[in-house]
Amino acid sequence: MKVLIIFAHPDRRSFNGSLLKETVSQFESEGHEVKVSDLYKQHWKSEIDEDDFPVTHKKGTRLLIPDASKEAYYSNNLTSDVVEEQKKLKWADLVIFQFPLWWNGMPAIMRGWVDRVFSFGFGYGIRERYGDGMLVGKKTMLIVTVAARKDNYSARGINGPMDDILFHITHNMLFYVGMSVLPSFVTYRTDNATEEVFEDYAKRLREVLKNIDTIEPIPFRTQNSGDYMLPAGTLKEGLEKPGETGFDMHVIKH
Amino acid sequence: MKVLIIFAHPDRRSFNGSLLKETVSQFESEGHEVKVSDLYKQHWKSEIDEDDFPVTHKKGTRLLIPDASKEAYYSNNLTSDVVEEQKKLKWADLVIFQFPLWWNGMPAIMRGWVDRVFSFGFGYGIRERYGDGMLVGKKTMLIVTVAARKDNYSARGINGPMDDILFHITHNMLFYVGMSVLPSFVTYRTDNATEEVFEDYAKRLREVLKNIDTIEPIPFRTQNSGDYMLPAGTLKEGLEKPGETGFDMHVIKH
Repeated sequence: MKVLIIFAHPDRRSFNGSLLKETVSQFESEGHEVKVSDLYKQHWKSEIDEDDFPVTHKKGTRLLIPDASKEAYYSNNLTSDVVEEQKKLKWADLVIFQFPLWWNGMPAIMRGWVDRVFSFGFGYGIRERYGDGMLVGKKTMLIVTVAARKDNYSARGINGPMDDILFHITHNMLFYVGMSVLPSFVTYRTDNATEEVFEDYAKRLREVLKNIDTIEPIPFRTQNSGDYMLPAGTLKEGLEKPGETGFDMHVIKH
Repeated sequence: MKVLIIFAHPDRRSFNGSLLKETVSQFESEGHEVKVSDLYKQHWKSEIDEDDFPVTHKKGTRLLIPDASKEAYYSNNLTSDVVEEQKKLKWADLVIFQFPLWWNGMPAIMRGWVDRVFSFGFGYGIRERYGDGMLVGKKTMLIVTVAARKDNYSARGINGPMDDILFHITHNMLFYVGMSVLPSFVTYRTDNATEEVFEDYAKRLREVLKNIDTIEPIPFRTQNSGDYMLPAGTLKEGLEKPGETGFDMHVIKH
């Protein structure tokens, strides 16, 4: 299997960086190929702007990002750093996004990776989204380290349930671009974790990675399966289970 | 009133930039003072890293962001760009975050503003959060432009309800640091909007801004009000209305 890890932590000596080491060595020990996009080390440019479209966009004219992105993608004029990441994505069977949860989302540098790499045509089209598109057939998974305690993200937790907090990533970014999204691996209270706590999480992570082929993806509903009214994009009446609202309706329960 | 607008669009000629013009002129016409942090124009540094703590953090040693952030804040050693933004925040009565919704969140450059400006001690402490802390007494509001159609963000919409999509910002970032969060102003299908559509939104926005003093903030539950078990941070049993789950439980309904 070909594994791409998008890694966004400024320090490899962190808890998060130590988990990266575990992930890489676990996969390599089983003979899988691994590539790591270490965004801090690559000095990844976070901000999408007119410099992203150096050939196709006329400097100083109005910048409509989807249009500019589409034009540059189809004429092979995206910048080389973006093209490099898109190549790695095409190569990979499994894409892992590994990051510390900052302010309940991805660090800015990884948000900037998404803004720039998931260009029109590559990451999304008009109808090709939510289970459809260029990246169909690939698996993806989040490995997330969280400073707060787990209770804060429980069903009654003040931060909201972790699955709901990650929904804008798992569903609205990764399933959106067509990938099958495996359940997220989340660790809590990582900043002052003891060696023992780390070892326990590392063991659980290796277990997950060893069995990755057998893990079922989150059963999000695909847009073009007939479940949604189009072009409105609203779930047809009666498909949800009683009491399901909001994000919950878009996950199929059996 | 003193108004600070954090603005994150690469092009002022955009729909979003045109709304900014409306906002500024509406407030100034009523005699309010307005400052704009135009993040793209300021070449804002998006990525938090060891350069954020030039005096207090020893380069090449392990970087624990909350600790490094705390140390630099309390010894007045944050970088000047961050200090400048914190000063503007202290000055303001109302803080507007204006941005295009990209991948269902803030653009990377604004995420980086949050990561860097809401430092330990300034943005958060251990107990000072969710309605408590340094920024109590200030109002805040999102002005968001969205490329997708409104249906996509309706109660049954495939992207999830807009209030839930914005919850990780309104509740988990802005209410978290203590501000009173006004309902968000959201425009849809903005990329190819006609002049007429723009004018209609602009008129509605001016109406909102004119009456801003009378708008009730979203009634999020404060952490230290007695509604939560501490330190678990879980909502006490029986406080929610029947059928309320997830994010919904943390908003008081009457």
